[in-house]
Amino acid sequence: MSTMQVSVLRGVGQVDVEERPIPHPAADEVLVEIGSVGVCGSDVHYYEHGRIGPYVVDSPLVLGHEAGGVVTAIGAQVTSLEVGQRVSIEPGVPCRHCPQCLAGRYNLCPGVRFFATPPYDGAFSQFVVMPAAFVYPVLDSISDDSAGLLEPLWVGVWACRRAQLAPGSTVLVTGAGPIGLITAQTARAYGADAVTVTDVNPHRLRLAERLGLGIVDVSQSTLADAGIEADVVLECSGNARATWDAVSTMARAGRVILVGMGGDTVQLPLAYVQDRELMITGAFRYANTWPTAIQLAASGRVNLDAMVTGHYGLHDVEAALTASKNDPTTIKAIVRPGE
Amino acid sequence: MSTMQVSVLRGVGQVDVEERPIPHPAADEVLVEIGSVGVCGSDVHYYEHGRIGPYVVDSPLVLGHEAGGVVTAIGAQVTSLEVGQRVSIEPGVPCRHCPQCLAGRYNLCPGVRFFATPPYDGAFSQFVVMPAAFVYPVLDSISDDSAGLLEPLWVGVWACRRAQLAPGSTVLVTGAGPIGLITAQTARAYGADAVTVTDVNPHRLRLAERLGLGIVDVSQSTLADAGIEADVVLECSGNARATWDAVSTMARAGRVILVGMGGDTVQLPLAYVQDRELMITGAFRYANTWPTAIQLAASGRVNLDAMVTGHYGLHDVEAALTASKNDPTTIKAIVRPGE
Amino acid sequence: MSTMQVSVLRGVGQVDVEERPIPHPAADEVLVEIGSVGVCGSDVHYYEHGRIGPYVVDSPLVLGHEAGGVVTAIGAQVTSLEVGQRVSIEPGVPCRHCPQCLAGRYNLCPGVRFFATPPYDGAFSQFVVMPAAFVYPVLDSISDDSAGLLEPLWVGVWACRRAQLAPGSTVLVTGAGPIGLITAQTARAYGADAVTVTDVNPHRLRLAERLGLGIVDVSQSTLADAGIEADVVLECSGNARATWDAVSTMARAGRVILVGMGGDTVQLPLAYVQDRELMITGAFRYANTWPTAIQLAASGRVNLDAMVTGHYGLHDVEAALTASKNDPTTIKAIVRPGE
Amino acid sequence: MSTMQVSVLRGVGQVDVEERPIPHPAADEVLVEIGSVGVCGSDVHYYEHGRIGPYVVDSPLVLGHEAGGVVTAIGAQVTSLEVGQRVSIEPGVPCRHCPQCLAGRYNLCPGVRFFATPPYDGAFSQFVVMPAAFVYPVLDSISDDSAGLLEPLWVGVWACRRAQLAPGSTVLVTGAGPIGLITAQTARAYGADAVTVTDVNPHRLRLAERLGLGIVDVSQSTLADAGIEADVVLECSGNARATWDAVSTMARAGRVILVGMGGDTVQLPLAYVQDRELMITGAFRYANTWPTAIQLAASGRVNLDAMVTGHYGLHDVEAALTASKNDPTTIKAIVRPGE
Repeated sequence: MSTMQVSVLRGVGQVDVEERPIPHPAADEVLVEIGSVGVCGSDVHYYEHGRIGPYVVDSPLVLGHEAGGVVTAIGAQVTSLEVGQRVSIEPGVPCRHCPQCLAGRYNLCPGVRFFATPPYDGAFSQFVVMPAAFVYPVLDSISDDSAGLLEPLWVGVWACRRAQLAPGSTVLVTGAGPIGLITAQTARAYGADAVTVTDVNPHRLRLAERLGLGIVDVSQSTLADAGIEADVVLECSGNARATWDAVSTMARAGRVILVGMGGDTVQLPLAYVQDRELMITGAFRYANTWPTAIQLAASGRVNLDAMVTGHYGLHDVEAALTASKNDPTTIKAIVRPGE
Repeated sequence: MSTMQVSVLRGVGQVDVEERPIPHPAADEVLVEIGSVGVCGSDVHYYEHGRIGPYVVDSPLVLGHEAGGVVTAIGAQVTSLEVGQRVSIEPGVPCRHCPQCLAGRYNLCPGVRFFATPPYDGAFSQFVVMPAAFVYPVLDSISDDSAGLLEPLWVGVWACRRAQLAPGSTVLVTGAGPIGLITAQTARAYGADAVTVTDVNPHRLRLAERLGLGIVDVSQSTLADAGIEADVVLECSGNARATWDAVSTMARAGRVILVGMGGDTVQLPLAYVQDRELMITGAFRYANTWPTAIQLAASGRVNLDAMVTGHYGLHDVEAALTASKNDPTTIKAIVRPGE
Repeated sequence: MSTMQVSVLRGVGQVDVEERPIPHPAADEVLVEIGSVGVCGSDVHYYEHGRIGPYVVDSPLVLGHEAGGVVTAIGAQVTSLEVGQRVSIEPGVPCRHCPQCLAGRYNLCPGVRFFATPPYDGAFSQFVVMPAAFVYPVLDSISDDSAGLLEPLWVGVWACRRAQLAPGSTVLVTGAGPIGLITAQTARAYGADAVTVTDVNPHRLRLAERLGLGIVDVSQSTLADAGIEADVVLECSGNARATWDAVSTMARAGRVILVGMGGDTVQLPLAYVQDRELMITGAFRYANTWPTAIQLAASGRVNLDAMVTGHYGLHDVEAALTASKNDPTTIKAIVRPGE
Repeated sequence: MSTMQVSVLRGVGQVDVEERPIPHPAADEVLVEIGSVGVCGSDVHYYEHGRIGPYVVDSPLVLGHEAGGVVTAIGAQVTSLEVGQRVSIEPGVPCRHCPQCLAGRYNLCPGVRFFATPPYDGAFSQFVVMPAAFVYPVLDSISDDSAGLLEPLWVGVWACRRAQLAPGSTVLVTGAGPIGLITAQTARAYGADAVTVTDVNPHRLRLAERLGLGIVDVSQSTLADAGIEADVVLECSGNARATWDAVSTMARAGRVILVGMGGDTVQLPLAYVQDRELMITGAFRYANTWPTAIQLAASGRVNLDAMVTGHYGLHDVEAALTASKNDPTTIKAIVRPGE
């Protein structure tokens, strides 16, 4: 077998499958047969709009960056992995030479090559090659889907780490999509005493409740009415109004982590930010989060499988993207390239 | 009733009960009828040696500083508490005017008045008066003994806070006495992935196991043999050898919090501290830890009642101190002044 | 002499002098004869609008909070000060009992009593009484005017402290008013390698240059054209456009401290804040900055006297306010109540 | 010309010059003609003892790691440097793949290859090849000797950075050797208000004075008598007694950075470390310090040339090592391989 099937985005709303040669791993790389790939909001956005901000799909692009699988070949110098190991893939490879990389902020590396971000192909593909240093073995207790969903968990760990979360914190997570639900569980694992999730989608709120999280349906109640005064806001909605409202009810010296992507502008209540000395920061992907995330998933402190609401083959990627966009009951669609 | 019974340390090894007038709370104070008081190692040390470093018992001293009880009277200006409330007492009252206090490090206030530290009397007493600001209401889910044992939990929270503990950390707690066992549980609540406790006392190690903690009996195995390489060492033994051994097996950039009190000198492996850039700091009492600790105890994340191995009346304080000192099965003796 | 003259704001645009009894210091207070008081933008704002946000002047108010003078009487318990000492006054007295105070963030104390903030009178007055703990002796090398202007220097120190400024940082200060010019000098004293100040007022930019600071006249050049890519932005203009422009040219992992007060809303470029993981925070007054500030002023690292462009007697407060508001050559007007 | 001269340490006390081929730079490397190399205490230690702790000289070793020079050839992929540029060399090349490197702590990389640390050769050599990423162009205002002495300045910057130095700090530097004198100047550039250096060598103390630093001759006066109560101790002596004495006089919440290398053990006053919550940490080399250091040297805030007390050719390396060891007037000996 020397070719593989790959799902390709050709333009706005145009996805089909093509045959490509299976790549060979270089000396420091491994070949991974992809088992499960989560569909992310950014995949949907590229499918719908053909771009995200400055990143424009101007040639065929393979989507998908929440990927797990099995190692099927290793390069000559690879000692950290073996053929047959189940793995999770960190989808961004930084340059490791620039000031950001040397300072430990490799997520801010201007030269990073990141899956499914033009011009770099992603993981809606039967196989991918990756540097071994960004492929992590996973324990048996982590399911195939969860191996892929470690990626959004890295996002959650990064948000909690930047928020310096610890016991004693009251946390508000705005938005009960996959990132919000995973981040909220992560916040609880960091010891937060009260973690509340907001949304207007009853399916998502119900899942939040099943996961043991506090909820506020912001179509029914304001945060103030719900008695929320958070020390930490983990903004996962990308919604301007939700951001404003959350910040406007925070406790003194609170921290806001902007995880959700939305418009070009964020508006904040200035006097509130000043008088209470709120700290606001963006979170961009993650760095050095994988060992923590693997522990959180393996110990069951974060339930990733609970996110999964549907599975799709490589020929059904369009259906997976559409469901993610339109179906209010879809939380996380999974693409299984081998099925 | 205008008098109360108080247990007084008169000199080395000399404790008896005397009658004293019940104090009246000043305008900003409350009167607390003491329910439970834990016996701390420092109480035992004063009983046995008549001093701790520069603190010398040169006049009669009431011991006991891990105290909970019920508010029985309140000063004219007190609005934060009501008569009848079950409370936990923070036993140190800082000056709130010095640079340390203004900087939020009130535990380092040189003018602090701390229970059972000469010349300030403690809580082996039927009643005490305290500024209302240092008396905290406790939830019904916290037992009387636990109301007192919130004090050593403040120590544990402070140690974890100074260690900046979070998921992803491997933690070694040296010493499975009450402080060690409480601190280890606290570390777990902070999200530490692996928490191991060391001791040589099988009773203590067994309790650690029952609490779900990892253990190493260092009379049987070295830390290296046990495969321990901690990111964080919470030193709760006060033992010089345990400190040296723990520091000598740490991971790079590890943090050591010196909680246990022991000799005049701590010896550390210099090249190891330098080559791995270990960070070592002392922890002295605590500051601003009470709301976190109440949450940890009320939610069951830290089990304080499991520490309790015996109860003693005010006339049996000497027995409580002796058991704490000599009986290997005693973990935490509780004095109940009202019984 | 038992009465003193006080300048009172009676309503929008209405200031006059009245006679009041000289107050007596309580046991922990001192009486200070005011030498110099800087006119602050907030004084001008109250004079012009009768309010700042929620703070409304609904009864006569004494303005002025940048005050220095000489101790003329001390309370019975005061040991830190003597009659005749030249002093600087910290104009806010926090409660020292709330969680913010106990955590060392007394600037966020909800119960603070702050000079010239309704309903608390300020320092355009011949005498004031203050708790001794908030009155600091100044060295002979600090002029009378500088003793008052230590207050805006506390603002600058707080901004630099929150920005964690150190050598290696490139700093942009937006706005060359007194706060901007003092903060920029403070940034240099913190070791920042390049400190650039922006404004459109040529008088202010010229003073910035005389102080050895880099300048950009943003009416003539964009920040991008001027080649500015700051690690730290100290926003001292309160201008929405200046804020947006400054944030939009920052380096990765940059920090923005919002010092200047302006509209109700701050708009920030969201993708930029996220992709570069900028950190934005408000600065509200200051806490524990006085010893640092006194050193910076006494050593000449920050030149406060250079700010002073005019002196006014107590009967000329209106002229001082008007010049501060309307005269482009006025940087800092000083009121001398004794002249 | 295809060969060069290299000074080689053959065993304890045995140094001679040999001819070696001039190396060729790989694609990402540059060839540097060495101009000046500072003699470091570690060079002297290898010369005298043939080892430093676990690092044993068991085959010929080229010493010297404080090196500057001129680029004479560049690899095919190098774009950051040009032939003819004056440069400073960072003498350690980390792996950039391990967890320490990815976390930004590349100084703790277990796989680092560091000049003059067995088995890696150093810079007492006419030429060396280095990855371009660790070779930095220097401004004309930096002398040849200073280009080499940027290396000890990186040590000083790292120490101050770990100490979180800023205005308001009182700093004690123990040991007035080259590292102490450079670190003390760096501390001043970080804004420290008082920087005092201790030693017993009058030549060194005199130089400290000329550099404008405070001094205490600890053969004449105790720190306590000298009124020293430091917030930060930068331990540069490697002397056990100096460390103990310095720590024993510190202010509450002080920080101690252990820079100097000495015995196997560091002894600290335990009660003092605990009661004052001192923070002690080792400093190991440095990471990401070069842009800051270049600024400090170029602006004259740190005077490196003042350290230089003698120059030696490649055939006089033994004399340079001996002077560094035995001559009390030698502060920093410089080897100039081209002379």
